[in-house]
Amino acid sequence: MHTTYIPIGPSLAKNGQCTFTVWAPVCNAVQLVLGSSPTLPWQMEKGEEGYWTVTIDKVTPGMQYWYKLDNELQRADPAARYQPQGVHGPSEVTDTSFNWTDDDWQGMELAEMVLYELHTGTFTAAGNFQGIISKLDHLQTLGITAIELLPIAQFPGHHNWGYDGVFPFAIHKDYGTANDLKQLVNAAHQRGIAVILDVVYNHLGPEGNYLQDFAPYFTEKYKLFWGGAINFDGQWCDGVRNYFIQNALMWLDEFQIDGLRLDAVHGIFDSSATHIMEELTAQVRLLEQRAQRRKILIAEFDLNNPRYISPVAQGGYGMDAQWVDEFHHALHGAITGEQTGYYEDFGPLEDLARSLQHSYVYTGQFSKHRKRHFGREPVNTGYNQFIAFVQNHDQVGNRLLGDRLSTMLSPEGLKVAAATLMLSPHVPLLFMGEEYGEKNPFLYFTSHSDEELIKNLREGRRKEFAVFNWEGEVPDPQDEAIFRQSKLSWQIDEVPGLFRLYKYLIAFRKERQALYNFRRDDAVRNIRVQNKVLRF
Amino acid sequence: MHTTYIPIGPSLAKNGQCTFTVWAPVCNAVQLVLGSSPTLPWQMEKGEEGYWTVTIDKVTPGMQYWYKLDNELQRADPAARYQPQGVHGPSEVTDTSFNWTDDDWQGMELAEMVLYELHTGTFTAAGNFQGIISKLDHLQTLGITAIELLPIAQFPGHHNWGYDGVFPFAIHKDYGTANDLKQLVNAAHQRGIAVILDVVYNHLGPEGNYLQDFAPYFTEKYKLFWGGAINFDGQWCDGVRNYFIQNALMWLDEFQIDGLRLDAVHGIFDSSATHIMEELTAQVRLLEQRAQRRKILIAEFDLNNPRYISPVAQGGYGMDAQWVDEFHHALHGAITGEQTGYYEDFGPLEDLARSLQHSYVYTGQFSKHRKRHFGREPVNTGYNQFIAFVQNHDQVGNRLLGDRLSTMLSPEGLKVAAATLMLSPHVPLLFMGEEYGEKNPFLYFTSHSDEELIKNLREGRRKEFAVFNWEGEVPDPQDEAIFRQSKLSWQIDEVPGLFRLYKYLIAFRKERQALYNFRRDDAVRNIRVQNKVLRF
Repeated sequence: MHTTYIPIGPSLAKNGQCTFTVWAPVCNAVQLVLGSSPTLPWQMEKGEEGYWTVTIDKVTPGMQYWYKLDNELQRADPAARYQPQGVHGPSEVTDTSFNWTDDDWQGMELAEMVLYELHTGTFTAAGNFQGIISKLDHLQTLGITAIELLPIAQFPGHHNWGYDGVFPFAIHKDYGTANDLKQLVNAAHQRGIAVILDVVYNHLGPEGNYLQDFAPYFTEKYKLFWGGAINFDGQWCDGVRNYFIQNALMWLDEFQIDGLRLDAVHGIFDSSATHIMEELTAQVRLLEQRAQRRKILIAEFDLNNPRYISPVAQGGYGMDAQWVDEFHHALHGAITGEQTGYYEDFGPLEDLARSLQHSYVYTGQFSKHRKRHFGREPVNTGYNQFIAFVQNHDQVGNRLLGDRLSTMLSPEGLKVAAATLMLSPHVPLLFMGEEYGEKNPFLYFTSHSDEELIKNLREGRRKEFAVFNWEGEVPDPQDEAIFRQSKLSWQIDEVPGLFRLYKYLIAFRKERQALYNFRRDDAVRNIRVQNKVLRF
Repeated sequence: MHTTYIPIGPSLAKNGQCTFTVWAPVCNAVQLVLGSSPTLPWQMEKGEEGYWTVTIDKVTPGMQYWYKLDNELQRADPAARYQPQGVHGPSEVTDTSFNWTDDDWQGMELAEMVLYELHTGTFTAAGNFQGIISKLDHLQTLGITAIELLPIAQFPGHHNWGYDGVFPFAIHKDYGTANDLKQLVNAAHQRGIAVILDVVYNHLGPEGNYLQDFAPYFTEKYKLFWGGAINFDGQWCDGVRNYFIQNALMWLDEFQIDGLRLDAVHGIFDSSATHIMEELTAQVRLLEQRAQRRKILIAEFDLNNPRYISPVAQGGYGMDAQWVDEFHHALHGAITGEQTGYYEDFGPLEDLARSLQHSYVYTGQFSKHRKRHFGREPVNTGYNQFIAFVQNHDQVGNRLLGDRLSTMLSPEGLKVAAATLMLSPHVPLLFMGEEYGEKNPFLYFTSHSDEELIKNLREGRRKEFAVFNWEGEVPDPQDEAIFRQSKLSWQIDEVPGLFRLYKYLIAFRKERQALYNFRRDDAVRNIRVQNKVLRF
């Protein structure tokens, strides 16, 4: 690609000069409405490929602004760094400086990662970045080497898993400021803990999404489960591609985040000669060179196609790793006996054996649930390109009652699950609280304000659960109690011995090079299932 | 893929026993209504993956049949070999035997091909396969080595380019029988001429398309310019994939066709781990081995992405070649000066130079017409994987008046165009009549019967032409005169010396190995444009 990469949003210099850049290729006039005198908007100038800019003196952090499009619509900045009044309010100029004290940090290879997925709002009572910092000692004791934050981009209302974000460049205000996030990253690095961030590049949330007023960010060409797909390959897609690439670079560069977990990349449709994932990866590799730090790209991806994580020289997109949900499904099916929903495709221990050997369970077989032959062998990939888990926010939170394994299995069952995960050749990921058998549920919660949307959301949840035949009322995602119930209890002794076992297993894994540096051809050669016992 | 490949349609044995197979995975009952006693339908049995079969004795060629779905809908066979009353009538059992006399034929490599694209209905006064056979002497004199037939699958009405076909396995009845087509292929092979067939796997025509009554052949997930996309990756897609793969194998195996030109593969959306083009190619490679004959797969493809024709080992789909419209656009722009529609992206001779060197003109630059950066370098491909032309059915027929270059250029201009094509490193394709400067237009013609469709079609044509700013009334595609005007005149001396020049250039090309066996790195090293002269 010969695309021009253009930074967007406000760029504030030390001398108070600030350049605002916004992409609006089909607008005929764009103005900046800055501070408290909206009667005097600044005319912006249209440059190449539809980027409008204006440079203004004496700008200070905290000044609020809007853009005015074609003298009509007043809109917040799609690349806003802060939305002090939430998704429907103005944007705010921020101070991006920070005194980093993690100079020795070089990033982390996937093979060394033991990931810990957490949701900022429910991880601690405080429900913010400072809360996470207060728990870093606990995480260090546990031994995990990387935390993975659920999306932190500004979403509507106060609580949400994060997948309804509509300002990908702004930190959700209830979680803290940019400075708080940098403090967290800095503190984590000082403890030898990497930080991975979950980002959503396949859709934007349904409320407070004003992007379409600026440019053709969306397309009707592809239909997504959750609405309009992002325009990665149609007319004017360059600016859309730049938007998300700039977003990735902002987290990885300015915030010194160590890697991104890209939400549901199977929802990203791109028929371009260079797929946006390949283009993003190329830009991140350049950043790695500039920053002299390893940066990791992980795809959440459910199509069992190794192309996303294969080397570019072999026709792949070059990403580092992908989630392997099928490891979870095989293990969950085997230990709980559940057979509804997508679990109908799993059950016998042989499925788990397949995942331990091939990462994917389905490499071309007929899937009852998908009603088609599915997947292919993950050629040209290594085990440590697959993130495995026995629980995660989706697998817990998308259950009717958000119930964790700890409420389904005996302590011994939980220990078997833990050991299976930690001794698997894949890169392990724990879901917050799993390490001590948290009993509180992790439910699906939102705080939208759009009534129509709320109605549809409730109906949608009901339909989604219908295939599972779970019994009971569908909890109302809008009920704030649901959010409060989903907070961790921090009863570390909940399941006697479990926390100690996780500590032991993590330490065991870290000490054994062989366990986290598997090449596919010299590992797990001999795997047998006999009398319901799996040996390898 | 572990897909099961299942032959479909009627399979008539010499002893009169006939097995009918039809794919209808979501039907609960399928019956065969055979011959003239529709009161006695045959119950079919549902096998694996939704294939219904029944075997019946004493079946003879010429017997007509329908399928009855869920005791309600009476429908022709989606895999019918013959539709004696057209797209709305019953199917007919055919005799598939033929006495081939081309045993020495081994197929043909792309590098040896000089292609000649023709439309069966307008190529001769007869407008059928026998007409083509009567012109094989002319084609042999000209020296071309392969004919490429526009689609011949059964379409509604009597005349149509062929892209509105709705029975991909049935030969359009006005063109002749299966036996006639086999006679043509046999006669061509005996003259050393290969036969390529244009097939449409990205959509079905809008009239007489009953496929959705049998199975989920279509999807709402992707939106095509011309309607519903084919379901290559959703639930039940295995049967859809099998349907088109069986179709390709039928032409290449039973009809001994040498290769397929796949219409607009950019309209085929497939997020499967194994793209349908890769799967099709693999099946065709197996056929090559069985038949001991070279079989060629050519994609019409406008996304400047070499993945379709790159080797599978390098992450490609392994197809043999693709059309390179940009060679045409660059040449057409340079010699006619046209600048409207997609020609706005072309003009200077440098564009033609780029295509001569890189095959694609756009390998990442910004395209004004597409409003985005577009394409990438065709790495891992050779020149003879690109089919170039100065005219084709689309480039002539999608002009307002269907006017050929012969009505726009002087005889000298036509000769320059001919020489540029025949001396280009790409595989050349001529459009019927081009060799002698045919003056008759090739217009867009249809003979639909659905009034609503006809109205939309007329409006659509008008809109399509709007961007070109061409002057004049849009001819009515439904007017039979349009079809008749589009027939070749066969005035071989139309442009003095042109036919002789084409003969000379073809012979010149065939005699010079270097001209048709180019590797990208040792050809066209030195190309310069100076004072409107291009040298290489």
